[in-house]
Amino acid sequence: MRYMLTYSYDGTNFNGYQKQKGLRTVQGEIEKALKSINNKATKIHSSGRTDALVHANNQVGHVDIDVKITEYKLKSALNSLLDDDIYIKDAKKVDDDFHARYMVKKKEYVYKLNMGEFNPIERNYIFQYCNNLDVTAMKKAIKFFKGTHDFTSFSSNQDRKEDNVRTIYKASIKKEGTTLIFTFVGSGFLKYMVRIMVGALIMVGNGKISYKDINKIFDKKDKSLVKITAPGCGLYLNKIWY
Amino acid sequence: MRYMLTYSYDGTNFNGYQKQKGLRTVQGEIEKALKSINNKATKIHSSGRTDALVHANNQVGHVDIDVKITEYKLKSALNSLLDDDIYIKDAKKVDDDFHARYMVKKKEYVYKLNMGEFNPIERNYIFQYCNNLDVTAMKKAIKFFKGTHDFTSFSSNQDRKEDNVRTIYKASIKKEGTTLIFTFVGSGFLKYMVRIMVGALIMVGNGKISYKDINKIFDKKDKSLVKITAPGCGLYLNKIWY
Repeated sequence: MRYMLTYSYDGTNFNGYQKQKGLRTVQGEIEKALKSINNKATKIHSSGRTDALVHANNQVGHVDIDVKITEYKLKSALNSLLDDDIYIKDAKKVDDDFHARYMVKKKEYVYKLNMGEFNPIERNYIFQYCNNLDVTAMKKAIKFFKGTHDFTSFSSNQDRKEDNVRTIYKASIKKEGTTLIFTFVGSGFLKYMVRIMVGALIMVGNGKISYKDINKIFDKKDKSLVKITAPGCGLYLNKIWY
Repeated sequence: MRYMLTYSYDGTNFNGYQKQKGLRTVQGEIEKALKSINNKATKIHSSGRTDALVHANNQVGHVDIDVKITEYKLKSALNSLLDDDIYIKDAKKVDDDFHARYMVKKKEYVYKLNMGEFNPIERNYIFQYCNNLDVTAMKKAIKFFKGTHDFTSFSSNQDRKEDNVRTIYKASIKKEGTTLIFTFVGSGFLKYMVRIMVGALIMVGNGKISYKDINKIFDKKDKSLVKITAPGCGLYLNKIWY
């Protein structure tokens, strides 16, 4: 029986999402718990990886479980086996052709940045930029990310050979006190794409580039133009639509 | 020269505030940094200790520094020596008779509790109670804490011989989504007092006692009546008035 799992995690104390021998990862911890429920090695297929230190409010994955178990029991058995920095929010029976990665329609990422004084309590959850930014210019700049574009300039070098065209449906900035909250909804995201878009917006906000330069950077398809990749700790995989 | 330091810390990875041989504590870390600036063992006298796992947005302490150093340099030197879970927000020259503990007029503590689904990302910063509470009853109950009372029933047993009379100027509950934010301003607080008051409010909220019972518990001067001490991770030392 195939189950869709929805789960949240605090990325701080993991060596990223993807399973790696000898390292504590989100995938590795969940598969260890699944093995003791399913009595055999059991893979979780997620909607996609998240980078080191990145958090998830609603990651989604699918698993195939042979033993008979209710949705509620699967959820509670997993939570009792997992450490408290991962939490299974929901386990739902799905058709055998459901695929957590291939059937993604849209994803939402949120990025949090603090322009104010360094806050040790939030250091792993909000990027402590601790400098003022020109939010008005950034709000003009972020509009350029909306729509369908080749995002080569806003991804890591490794992705260059692939198809780098993606569609961004929503790109917004909200200011709450000294915190900026960026929201991006898109058809899909390339490696480091959200963090590099936020990096470009920081460059607009601190005056290194003009908001109009975002368009030029798109055109040049050159990753080296955006010098800032915002750190992983401020990023949240927030929602996935199927 | 005496300096008043204002500092914030994330209590998660400390063995409490107070210096203990061989353990990482807030006081121990600050005094280690002070020693390397002042070239000799240098004590920090804080407004008071905080328990293990408790956070501070604005803790205050005073230190005596013999070497000549500006306020700004002292702040930046300390921050460069300290790990990023403590942050010196301000260093200010004060008169030699200033005392961070004896001259406290009022203190504000904030307690955060989540009634909603377990959130792994906030587990060290908001107590994950994860059950509904009758907030209306709790708002009636919290009023009983205001004013001048003997708080013996709302403190740990060790304090019984001392004078347990304190004055609470403000006691309020605010609901933000599924999170309850308790604020207490008082002349001073006994050991575990905020966490036991929150524990009593939880007992009101889950129906174990009536809101009117708070008064009876005060009268009995018996610590054993409040069965819940809310965990340290939800507590913040927020503000100190001199």
